[in-house]
Amino acid sequence: MPIPTIEWVDGRIHLIDQTLLPNEFKQIYCDDVESVWEAIKSLRVRGAPAIGIAGALGAVLGIWKSKATNYPDFAAELKKVTDYLATSRPTAVNLFWALTRIEQTAEKHKDLEIEQLKGVLLDEAQNIIEEDRARCRAIGQHGLNLLRNGDTILTHCNAGGLATSDYGTALAVMFSAHESGKNISVYADETRPLLQGARLTAWELMQAGIDVTLICDNMAAQVMKEGKIQCAIVGADRIAANGDTANKIGTYNVAILAKVHDIPFYVAAPTSTLDLSLKTGDLIPIEQRAAEEVTEGFGSRTAPEGVKVYSPAFDVTPAHLITAIITEKGIAHPPYEESLASQGD
Amino acid sequence: MPIPTIEWVDGRIHLIDQTLLPNEFKQIYCDDVESVWEAIKSLRVRGAPAIGIAGALGAVLGIWKSKATNYPDFAAELKKVTDYLATSRPTAVNLFWALTRIEQTAEKHKDLEIEQLKGVLLDEAQNIIEEDRARCRAIGQHGLNLLRNGDTILTHCNAGGLATSDYGTALAVMFSAHESGKNISVYADETRPLLQGARLTAWELMQAGIDVTLICDNMAAQVMKEGKIQCAIVGADRIAANGDTANKIGTYNVAILAKVHDIPFYVAAPTSTLDLSLKTGDLIPIEQRAAEEVTEGFGSRTAPEGVKVYSPAFDVTPAHLITAIITEKGIAHPPYEESLASQGD
Repeated sequence: MPIPTIEWVDGRIHLIDQTLLPNEFKQIYCDDVESVWEAIKSLRVRGAPAIGIAGALGAVLGIWKSKATNYPDFAAELKKVTDYLATSRPTAVNLFWALTRIEQTAEKHKDLEIEQLKGVLLDEAQNIIEEDRARCRAIGQHGLNLLRNGDTILTHCNAGGLATSDYGTALAVMFSAHESGKNISVYADETRPLLQGARLTAWELMQAGIDVTLICDNMAAQVMKEGKIQCAIVGADRIAANGDTANKIGTYNVAILAKVHDIPFYVAAPTSTLDLSLKTGDLIPIEQRAAEEVTEGFGSRTAPEGVKVYSPAFDVTPAHLITAIITEKGIAHPPYEESLASQGD
Repeated sequence: MPIPTIEWVDGRIHLIDQTLLPNEFKQIYCDDVESVWEAIKSLRVRGAPAIGIAGALGAVLGIWKSKATNYPDFAAELKKVTDYLATSRPTAVNLFWALTRIEQTAEKHKDLEIEQLKGVLLDEAQNIIEEDRARCRAIGQHGLNLLRNGDTILTHCNAGGLATSDYGTALAVMFSAHESGKNISVYADETRPLLQGARLTAWELMQAGIDVTLICDNMAAQVMKEGKIQCAIVGADRIAANGDTANKIGTYNVAILAKVHDIPFYVAAPTSTLDLSLKTGDLIPIEQRAAEEVTEGFGSRTAPEGVKVYSPAFDVTPAHLITAIITEKGIAHPPYEESLASQGD
């Protein structure tokens, strides 16, 4: 990915508007925290790590022009900004993680001049980006050992460069394997309702020169039955202490299908996605999305006016369906209570 | 359904163009066999029983203006028409069944005057429609006994009135239960790529006053996990002697999910869908559909130009995942080799 998913440019946030891909590649500027909130909410920027970065940069943007002259006033302003940004997507733990990190950095440097403190917070947000880059590459390096030459991988949604600073989590494994000379192919679920697989994953893999075939979500079972898939790799939005994993709606479906067809099912995610405070995935809140994303997602209306719609944005895949979890620290195997605890912060 | 899905009107075939629903309700006329072929191929008329009816009426239309003066010439013309119509959809056995029935009727009455014979063939096509009506109602009556008051049913694709002459197979069970006073609700998979669930099933159920909620195909697992579903009922395009069932792509997926969540999975279909000549479903040919149905399904392009697409129109659900098969003759339970053999012709 030559172009960063999201970056700070001269007091503004510059990001790829992912809602326009693959038909249009357009970068937009966010000049205020409201437009960052809107960009997260409407999925112009999406994917757990990228949302964390957007949150961190958004928090900095929110206090960048602060006129506070003392720390308590500044901290109150910052808290207002982070509380506001936290309401944009309720499931992605990276968002809260990044916002907390910015708050804690402020607290740690509260004796600095306010203008200096702003610079420190921006540096911290940039650190989050740099760390994300390093983590994604480490995930790729660890994960590529799970792939054999000739393997075909199924993936769901987009856990690629566009979901992170620039290299991805699930896709990092594929990028790394490809770069290391392994011959791999990918089947990408289109991922209704917002088609991140069709629009983003297929696009990223094609850009990288990796062989990719697009399918509708409901075709994955048939493709597995035909013996076309050697493993499934997906990203994660939040992983509980026992390994239960929240990810894009349909991930749980893929995990069941993989189990039934005796295909390994891997989750690739940075340790910032771990939420060891949650014992199980039952405690992860599931965001509900608007009906129009289902009924008017393709431009024209595809369902009767007034039809009821149920549209959870995520589901939780129980740990017993997950063969291994790939993080930047290595590959965690069951029982995850132990293997993840040793990877957590 | 007050308006028939497909009917013969004064030497032409009149049918609801289902590609326009639910935004537009439009009936079109087919004046020649080519337009019937096109209507089947492009899914203006779809659903196994309705395709059978379209095939039978199309065969009659194809010879309606025949100038043959003797039976061998007429039979040769008819054969050309039925061979042509058989190429429109390769998986739906009802199409071949209906075409064969028209051919056999001609053979049986080969001593008639040609003009008289045409009338006999039209009568036979009308018989197919009337029998379909009776069968759908019988399927509904048998199936409603499987539903309890308060049940919520998951269905996939459209096995409703629009897939038959006017009442449906899977949906007949729901219509019958509703008409009998049972309080039922339905979750309808939208059914990518052509969204028959969103466009047709949701529309039919709303017309009938049945509570329906639309979901994306990849949400079914989550909905089941939440305990919202008491059973799944789907239609069928072809059922092998052992009970293996070809139906719209994604059906096999639903069947696996139902099994894993301990939810009964029912197939509802007329016995004309049985193909007892096939020992198992492995022998059922699976039609591949055009990439554009996935990448440009609803006006705007949703995937990168040039992306590879794999799009099987059907999958085969193995018999061991099917709790029971509801036909017009009753409810067949495993082992299907025995229970279906006694229902076949």
